[in-house]
Amino acid sequence: MSTDFSTEGSYVHGGEEFNRDTRYIQTRITRDGRDGYPVEAGRYRLVAAKACPWANRAIIVRRLLGLEDSISMGLCGPTHDSRSWTFDLDPNGVDPVLGIERLQQAYFARFPDYPRGITVPAIVDTTTGKVVTNNYPQITLDMSLEWKDFHREGAPDLYPEHMRAEIDEVADLVFRDVNNGVYRAGFAGSQQAYEKAYHRLFHRLDWLEDRLRNQRYLVGETITEADVRLFTTLARFDAVYHGHFKCNRNKLSEMPVLFAYARDLFQTPGFGDTTDFAQIKAHYYRVHVDINPTQIVPLGPDESLWQLPHNRADLGGLPFGNGTAPTVL
Amino acid sequence: MSTDFSTEGSYVHGGEEFNRDTRYIQTRITRDGRDGYPVEAGRYRLVAAKACPWANRAIIVRRLLGLEDSISMGLCGPTHDSRSWTFDLDPNGVDPVLGIERLQQAYFARFPDYPRGITVPAIVDTTTGKVVTNNYPQITLDMSLEWKDFHREGAPDLYPEHMRAEIDEVADLVFRDVNNGVYRAGFAGSQQAYEKAYHRLFHRLDWLEDRLRNQRYLVGETITEADVRLFTTLARFDAVYHGHFKCNRNKLSEMPVLFAYARDLFQTPGFGDTTDFAQIKAHYYRVHVDINPTQIVPLGPDESLWQLPHNRADLGGLPFGNGTAPTVL
Repeated sequence: MSTDFSTEGSYVHGGEEFNRDTRYIQTRITRDGRDGYPVEAGRYRLVAAKACPWANRAIIVRRLLGLEDSISMGLCGPTHDSRSWTFDLDPNGVDPVLGIERLQQAYFARFPDYPRGITVPAIVDTTTGKVVTNNYPQITLDMSLEWKDFHREGAPDLYPEHMRAEIDEVADLVFRDVNNGVYRAGFAGSQQAYEKAYHRLFHRLDWLEDRLRNQRYLVGETITEADVRLFTTLARFDAVYHGHFKCNRNKLSEMPVLFAYARDLFQTPGFGDTTDFAQIKAHYYRVHVDINPTQIVPLGPDESLWQLPHNRADLGGLPFGNGTAPTVL
Repeated sequence: MSTDFSTEGSYVHGGEEFNRDTRYIQTRITRDGRDGYPVEAGRYRLVAAKACPWANRAIIVRRLLGLEDSISMGLCGPTHDSRSWTFDLDPNGVDPVLGIERLQQAYFARFPDYPRGITVPAIVDTTTGKVVTNNYPQITLDMSLEWKDFHREGAPDLYPEHMRAEIDEVADLVFRDVNNGVYRAGFAGSQQAYEKAYHRLFHRLDWLEDRLRNQRYLVGETITEADVRLFTTLARFDAVYHGHFKCNRNKLSEMPVLFAYARDLFQTPGFGDTTDFAQIKAHYYRVHVDINPTQIVPLGPDESLWQLPHNRADLGGLPFGNGTAPTVL
């Protein structure tokens, strides 16, 4: 998640559209190690935060693929200060593997003058304490492609070769209008910019409602990277985006197809069990003081709706293809 | 509506509960004129604002009783500045009857050092330009009781004698937990104060959901003052209180009984036709800069839901008793 830490709580710039800084650290961890970072079990640490939708993707994919024993994970707390995400959930506020208090330290260890946001997810090389990458869309794809030798038995193929063009196409539309669209609505610096983002968002949600009416998953018959990317935004929709970001034509729970689709995923091991509504709400409502100066965190909405039956199995499809679900936590 | 104009946009006081200043001008317009203001057709002007739930009550009651020819009405715009509600909707920003730009002028004409909020609804004596009263709960009751000789033919009895104890009792609970309860949630100065208000609000809404399940109106078989007082808050619930005031356990539209009850009233002449969602949203989202600093006004929610069938007629009851509905506008 790209976060501007330069001015605390300043996400809205009057009169302007919200522009996400998408310049991430492009280094990749690959099978051939061509960037200097070969895949190697036990060497790397994923630093994530349950609050963050971009990091939540990596948490989900790591679990679906069974990479827990190969890539360890450190979790930052839901709120961060003006400089960095911090390990405030850990004893003494120190990540037990990296030995640091703030993720910033791993960024500065590699780039002393790192000028952009200190974002999660990030992967850190435990042998040097230096950040390798924070390029979240590549991180999950590389977990699928480059880390294949370390996948659990029965791991699904989240990025099947013959589906990649369609997955990429859907994911691009979803990123523009939905994943990032909610931020464009919530951090709009003008009424006009807000309204533009709102219309694009709900146009795309209507499109998704229609697409998913007779098809269980976004692309093909099984869960793919495209579903993971949509899910983490849908999971936050009613809890945060509807009120805090003013994406309020309707709640997700008022879109029967899309909410059933989201519940289907939520009730699948790897999705709901990595979703933490308390951390999600704490993050958005406490960190964005320029749109919620009181920092009061709403008690609603009723989360029990996520456990309602979804009846999506009737549509066919096999969540994990020929593979199996990860073990229930 | 009690509004603190002393510090623009400052409704939230850190660490404190929201306390409504309920000291209103107690002067009454009565049949016997004991306060110096006898009922007299054409003499008084109701100053209201469609945005404001307290003023909306008076707009509704005036129309249900057919007092339009006896008590004229001036309408302020949805937003106000740090000093006063203004007649910015009128040509040149001047009320055509009172000849003033700001309601404050009518207050100061009578009380040069008036120390409290300049609130709507207010009734102004057009012969002197001085405010008579802003005591909103008494204003609507006096329209029913003191202005009876001027009611239209077929006007309902909104405050029937044998029902008054029950109406007062229900209205008190609704005021404390719902009408004012939403403000206590929205302007809470601490997480604790917010949570207390939230729980009281939804406890009362659940109680109302239950009470109205087999009974068409709140008290007795007809529309009464109690329904008017609840309606103006319910009409604003999903548009404003759910998001802006964080009253978000659920939307009103997710409470089937209470929403059907609200739609029944909304579709009754006098209610929906005096409800202006655009003004309502503009008011709350633009005026309360301390909880919505960007002043961006949400486009949602979908207002067409208010036109859905309510099927409440099956419960019996007669909206206007032996009387008739006001003419459809």
